[in-house]
Amino acid sequence: MSTELVTPEEVARAHTDLGDVAVRTPLLGAEWLSARVGGDVRLKCENLQHAGAFKIRGAYTAVSRLTEEQRQKGVIAFSSGNHAQGVALAAQIFGIRAVVVMPTTAPAIKVDGARRLGAEVVIEGTTSVHREAKAREIAADQGLTIIPAFDDINVITGQGTCGVEILEQWPEVEAILVPCGGGGLLSGIAAYVKRVKPDCLVIGVEPEKADAMHRSLAAGELVTIESRPTIADGLMPVRPGALNFEHVRALVDDLVLVPDDAIMEAAASLMKFSKLVVEFSGAATVGALLAGAWKPEGRRTVAVLSGGNMDPARAVSLFSTAQ
Amino acid sequence: MSTELVTPEEVARAHTDLGDVAVRTPLLGAEWLSARVGGDVRLKCENLQHAGAFKIRGAYTAVSRLTEEQRQKGVIAFSSGNHAQGVALAAQIFGIRAVVVMPTTAPAIKVDGARRLGAEVVIEGTTSVHREAKAREIAADQGLTIIPAFDDINVITGQGTCGVEILEQWPEVEAILVPCGGGGLLSGIAAYVKRVKPDCLVIGVEPEKADAMHRSLAAGELVTIESRPTIADGLMPVRPGALNFEHVRALVDDLVLVPDDAIMEAAASLMKFSKLVVEFSGAATVGALLAGAWKPEGRRTVAVLSGGNMDPARAVSLFSTAQ
Repeated sequence: MSTELVTPEEVARAHTDLGDVAVRTPLLGAEWLSARVGGDVRLKCENLQHAGAFKIRGAYTAVSRLTEEQRQKGVIAFSSGNHAQGVALAAQIFGIRAVVVMPTTAPAIKVDGARRLGAEVVIEGTTSVHREAKAREIAADQGLTIIPAFDDINVITGQGTCGVEILEQWPEVEAILVPCGGGGLLSGIAAYVKRVKPDCLVIGVEPEKADAMHRSLAAGELVTIESRPTIADGLMPVRPGALNFEHVRALVDDLVLVPDDAIMEAAASLMKFSKLVVEFSGAATVGALLAGAWKPEGRRTVAVLSGGNMDPARAVSLFSTAQ
Repeated sequence: MSTELVTPEEVARAHTDLGDVAVRTPLLGAEWLSARVGGDVRLKCENLQHAGAFKIRGAYTAVSRLTEEQRQKGVIAFSSGNHAQGVALAAQIFGIRAVVVMPTTAPAIKVDGARRLGAEVVIEGTTSVHREAKAREIAADQGLTIIPAFDDINVITGQGTCGVEILEQWPEVEAILVPCGGGGLLSGIAAYVKRVKPDCLVIGVEPEKADAMHRSLAAGELVTIESRPTIADGLMPVRPGALNFEHVRALVDDLVLVPDDAIMEAAASLMKFSKLVVEFSGAATVGALLAGAWKPEGRRTVAVLSGGNMDPARAVSLFSTAQ
């Protein structure tokens, strides 16, 4: 395969460039979880990141590598929510224009968040295919540069900075579980960790009902799936990114599937025992541990909590049916 | 006044002794709050502490300073909840017996928490006066040593370790807001901070409906108040501790009152914007900021979030009200 993968040196440079634009999110112990699944499990809390998700890492990196002329004209993103907020925040930091195209199904908390960060929000369709078409149309009309949510070398590089911090915070880590939607965070973390510490496992976690990466790996090529609703609204692309597919295929040790009910239990338990608000997509890794989809077997394990933007109203209805 | 106050040297020693028994809890930025109240406000997240509150700091310190013979016989505590869990955890670490006397009004999450940590739970009455009488009776009968919730030199010393971390994590801090129930955490933090960095303000926050310390300061002596229900179940002693009163009188710069509705708004906003579950008592400091009871006026300010043990059902219904 001729695709060029992100290098660990590029990720390290992005981490330096990021400076204190992103929060160095805490890595917290979770004794209730460790005792239950058998291993020392710690939580990388990207739910405590600016704008409530890891996305600022990639968005800032991508915007920072545009030309001055591109930045003057502004940027556009299409996203189920968190990437929209990340791009809005990155644009705000650079003082440039941002347009974000979000689906009709985006939780209000994510739409409001993007607006609060100064972005112009366009609501369009329900799938990434709809959003992308609309964004390309607006970008062409108005001379905006698209900042892709995951299928982009700079975005992947930026998301990888989360992996730099994990290795710094816990050099003895033996396995890292990462939620997989389009595969940006998973690709970036793998690109760094699997080259700097090859014996550390990097495991992707995909919702059972949104298993586009899983099917693509099985088929050996990119597969477009039927969109089926999952509670993990941030992990629903119908087709993985091409670059992400190559990174996952080359570098990720395993990709496991997690059912919605385990994700729901994970989000509820994180609230009760770890005092953390984690959105369903962000709780997929802990869901996989609870469901036994991947077993630490004594390993020092990090579960990445990728975001915390749970819609309050949705939380209420789901938790009341869950408990 | 002849009372001997806790020294900063003792607090520093307790912090060393504590080692990694307690979590060095993160100090997180909170831009939504800083922007709203005018100042750089950061959150000291004791809700992310073991057993969900700062109490392990004082409980461990007190248990560690008992004689071997006292420890063999076991310990007893009376508490509205979090101190019970702290003592249960400290006893578990030392492998000794713990009995905890809790009120009929204690949230289930705190009762269950103490039981899960191996303590024998006795439910008795609704006020600290009832609980104390029962605990003294059991202690005398069974040769147990009482670990007071706040009115104890070793407990105050241990709680002060939270202040050590705040100064280490943010040496430029100019003001620290601390919830005040019995006054243990406030006394300990003041004992350390006001001697090590005298120009840093230490401000106590008491619920309007449980203003025992406020009234005692006004009267110049300990005052017992009528118990009135407040949502801040952890801040309801009807009478401050004698030692705590002396510490607060000598060292604390100001003590402000916060209404329940501001505490409730604070807990909801902390969930929505900071992705943190904080119990009402623990959110009193942020409530005081939101209500304007104390104004940062540009100061680098820490709000201590003292605990996170909120019943999940209550948390979720509250979350739905977040604006």
